[in-house]
Amino acid sequence: MEGQPHPYVPRDLKLPDYVPVVLSQSTIVGVYAISSFVVVSLVWILSGRSHKIAKIDRWLMCWWAFTGLTHMILEGYFVFSPEFYKEKTPFYLAEVWKEYSKGDSRYAARDAGIVAVEGLTAVLEGPASILAVYAIAMGKSYSYILQLAISLGQLYGTAVYFITSFLDGDNYSSSPYYYYAYYVGANASWVVIPLLICIRCWKKICSAFQVQGQKKTKSR
Amino acid sequence: MEGQPHPYVPRDLKLPDYVPVVLSQSTIVGVYAISSFVVVSLVWILSGRSHKIAKIDRWLMCWWAFTGLTHMILEGYFVFSPEFYKEKTPFYLAEVWKEYSKGDSRYAARDAGIVAVEGLTAVLEGPASILAVYAIAMGKSYSYILQLAISLGQLYGTAVYFITSFLDGDNYSSSPYYYYAYYVGANASWVVIPLLICIRCWKKICSAFQVQGQKKTKSR
Repeated sequence: MEGQPHPYVPRDLKLPDYVPVVLSQSTIVGVYAISSFVVVSLVWILSGRSHKIAKIDRWLMCWWAFTGLTHMILEGYFVFSPEFYKEKTPFYLAEVWKEYSKGDSRYAARDAGIVAVEGLTAVLEGPASILAVYAIAMGKSYSYILQLAISLGQLYGTAVYFITSFLDGDNYSSSPYYYYAYYVGANASWVVIPLLICIRCWKKICSAFQVQGQKKTKSR
Repeated sequence: MEGQPHPYVPRDLKLPDYVPVVLSQSTIVGVYAISSFVVVSLVWILSGRSHKIAKIDRWLMCWWAFTGLTHMILEGYFVFSPEFYKEKTPFYLAEVWKEYSKGDSRYAARDAGIVAVEGLTAVLEGPASILAVYAIAMGKSYSYILQLAISLGQLYGTAVYFITSFLDGDNYSSSPYYYYAYYVGANASWVVIPLLICIRCWKKICSAFQVQGQKKTKSR
């Protein structure tokens, strides 16, 4: 009934019927790295077929494809699988979250704040990121505003993620290694890259309004 | 040591040294309504002195002044006053949160998700809302993008607010009356108005890019 002992902190966290992680850390990280590399390469090659798309936009398409699929597949699985830690087969997506919970046990514990943020990320930001790939490719007028909206959502989610842990005593990691590798390291990209995208989109949108303003002045 | 019994749900919530609310509901709501009316009237009158500012923009300036001051003063007090429920004098801001906690006891209980969302709202969105009043008045090129960014933040915060409560069983109200009046009613404006502002800003930004696109095409 009690299942096997879990490796997570706090030690008194109750996880009945817990089944330990089977795949090695290198396998779990390796599969994610290779799949991401394949996705990024595909988007890079396909976007290169059009001479109209600037290099920076091609990089952004790669980012949005990568982050969108991460949100929808990895985080989507977590959101809709409250009992992933009971999974008996070495099912990859369950293994990912069993392993990641060593860096933040609130995932295994099904903390409401985590599920809320991951839910918004998986259900809204995931598909929106894939739409951003399309919007950049087609040069849509909503491209920058969409990218800014998703990036702000990612930043807000990451802020709630770190602040709630801090307020609750920041004691959800099995060891300092998992704290820095998973809790800090794995989330750092979703702070730095959205921040850079926000700054870029903000500037682009402001300059579009300046152009519009000049046009209005001229036409008077 | 235990203080007086509190009126909040769940009944077993521990609030040592709790001091009951002194002001009546009508006084608490009345002061907020009158102060808000004064702020809105002032912004409406002052913005009317410039013939350049459209009526819709004057209404938006009123909204941003109202919501910005609410975020900074009311929510700001909550964020930085973890022991507001112990306040012995009928200090208005403490009374507000003692009363509101009847609709959502997570405020008195200092739930980490609530404090994180309210912290971001008070510290970032509050001052940004006041900046939006200025940006609209001066016709700044970042006016729409700023309004969209704050509104998205408000929507994200409200989503986390409702989803976390739902996931935890939605049992934080002292009665159905407080549930609908405070938890649903008082938050409804921060769903409807930001949503409308998002739609408007999204359209304005898209059309600015269409104008920029046309200009580029013409100048070729």
